Formats: sequence, structure tokens, C-alpha cells
Amino acid sequence: MNLDRLSRQIRFIAEVDKLKEIFRQTLCTQSRRQENDAEHSWHLALLVIVLAEHSNHQPLDVLRVLKMVIIHDLVEIDAGDTFAYDTVRMADQHEREARAADRIFGLLPDDQRDEFRALWDEFEERATPESRFAAAVDRFQPMLLNCLTEGAAWRNHGVTSDRVIARNQHIAEGSTPLWAYAARMIDDAVAAGSLAQ
Amino acid sequence: MNLDRLSRQIRFIAEVDKLKEIFRQTLCTQSRRQENDAEHSWHLALLVIVLAEHSNHQPLDVLRVLKMVIIHDLVEIDAGDTFAYDTVRMADQHEREARAADRIFGLLPDDQRDEFRALWDEFEERATPESRFAAAVDRFQPMLLNCLTEGAAWRNHGVTSDRVIARNQHIAEGSTPLWAYAARMIDDAVAAGSLAQ
Repeated sequence: MNLDRLSRQIRFIAEVDKLKEIFRQTLCTQSRRQENDAEHSWHLALLVIVLAEHSNHQPLDVLRVLKMVIIHDLVEIDAGDTFAYDTVRMADQHEREARAADRIFGLLPDDQRDEFRALWDEFEERATPESRFAAAVDRFQPMLLNCLTEGAAWRNHGVTSDRVIARNQHIAEGSTPLWAYAARMIDDAVAAGSLAQ
Repeated sequence: MNLDRLSRQIRFIAEVDKLKEIFRQTLCTQSRRQENDAEHSWHLALLVIVLAEHSNHQPLDVLRVLKMVIIHDLVEIDAGDTFAYDTVRMADQHEREARAADRIFGLLPDDQRDEFRALWDEFEERATPESRFAAAVDRFQPMLLNCLTEGAAWRNHGVTSDRVIARNQHIAEGSTPLWAYAARMIDDAVAAGSLAQ
């Protein structure tokens, strides 16, 4: 056994426990408390295995999609969560997150550091079928939770339906049926008064 | 688009949001609050992608291991969490969880209901390389968090090192190096006073 390698891996696993303390604007459907990034990442992984058949591109490398969603938010341990409609904080978001990626993935053995960094870069660039599908579920899941909590996060921040559409329409790049479903959810949320026109 | 199929899948995705409210005995390392099953499941998925190389059996079907850890605790939405050292509640644990599996996986389209149920049965039976590795990380992760929180869950329940060894030694069936590492952690925890001899 290469103990130094295993020790480094376990130090990384211990460090990323901090993801459980990074809270998002979206509320959980039951207790209505804020969801954290670890729960969000798990939920995305579940969406991936349930919805992979709806990816525009088939066959899809589901394992690579799963790896992306499992690690996609680790950078927020250092950079914090940036709300999807916070245009001020979004200005330097990528720079803050890239510094975080250097530190956090740097805890791993070099080969895994490079693999995880490449997965995160791929996710951010959204140029492959796998990253487009990962990005689609990453947009769809908070919309679903918002709809199931009477639009709490949208209403707390005065977000309107045109901004929700502008922000989320790239779901269609990953999955046309999922975007069709989401567009219907947006209409229903407006009709129900959960989302301002 | 088969809307009925997608609607059923999304109803399932909404239902399992409840996993975020099922709390375990293990504490998170930072805030020292109880970890929930969604966070735990995400952490396991991360362990799988970092530690898969240490599986006794190679090559390992990592995608199947990931699917197992993502869904393995969904039954606790109905059956609740059973603490690893609670021998009373463990008596009818499997029966309670099997009923939960019928209801929860039953929300999915039939083909996915059958796939997810088969994955859960495989995880429970621990007879394949994939389920043995999934079970190994499922045992290792709470031990690691216990060690990082001065043995809080062990001490709260008066758990001794012989019971920790008896409960967790099957980690070796999935990964000999991981069990070697865990055995050293147990020794260190005893030496540090986090775990009673």
C-alpha cells in the first residue's frame, strides 16, 4: 500500500466535508431551510441517473457526468456560493473559483488533481455533451425546488420570469425535453404567483 | 417527449428531497451538527471516485458503485436512520427498509423501479465487488468523521473499540488498504481517548 498516496486522498476527503456548510439561496422542500452544496450535489447526481435518457446527445458518458456534478461545487468551499442572479458577485466569480480549484484539487495526488481540475474546467466551459447535460441538471434542480417552495428564493430576491428564462434556457443545450418541462414550470409558477412576470 | 414518463421521474426527484431531513448520529466536522443522509450520500460518492483504485477487485464498475451509493439510503425516508450500533432497531431494519423500497422506487417508471431496486438489493447483499466496495466506503466515511470529531457519536452511545472493529471489519472485503488505514485510525482514536477500549 502506498500510504502517502492514500493519506493525501483521505486528507482531501476530510477537507471537502466543509461543503456541507456552504449554503445556497434555494430552500429544501420539507423544513424550508436553505439547502447546502453537499445536498445539492447529491440531488444532482440523482437527477443524472434518473434523467440521463433525456440528454440530447446519446450515448452519454454518465460516469463522467456524475464525476462532474459530484465535484462541481467544491470550489465554493473557498469562493462561497454565488447566487444565480447576483450580477455584482458574478463579475469575479470565475477568478475566485479558479484560485479555489488550485488549492482544493491541489490536495490530491498529482494525477487526480489533474483529472479533477480537467473535469471542473469541462463543466465550466459547457462545450461537451457531458458538461451540457451536467449544466442542465444544475439549472433545473434549483428551479424545481423553487417551484416546490412557492418561489421563495425568487421572491426573496425580486427575480422576474424573463431573468429566469434568460438564465436557464441553456438547459435546452443539454436536454430539449427537460427545457420544455422547465418552461412549463415557469409558466405555472407565474400563474400561481410564485414568480413575478 | 413522453411527458407522463418525465413527470413520474420528476415526481420521484421531488419526493426524495426528503432525504435532506433524515439525520444520522455522525457529526459534520465543521459545525458539529448531525449529518443528514443526502450529505452522507454525496460524501460517499466523492469517496468512490477518489478511492476506487483501492478496491480489491479490478477493474471495478465505478458507475454501478456510484449509482448504489447515490440511492442506498433513500429507504430511510420512510424507515428512518438506524444507528450502526443500535441492535434493537436493527432487528426489523431490513423489513422496514424493504417496504420503503417498494413505495419509493415504485414512484419511478417500471424499468427504472426495477433497476433501482436491483441496485439496492445488490448493495444490501454485499456479494459483488461493486457492492462490497460501496459497503466499504459506507462504513469508512462515518468512522473518519467520528475520528475528526473526537469520537462524538461513539462516546454519545458508549461504543467500544471491539464493537467498532466487529462492525467495520468487512471494509477489508471491499478494500484491504482501506481497512488497514481504518484499523490504524481506530488505534489512534483509542490512544487519543476518543474511543473506549
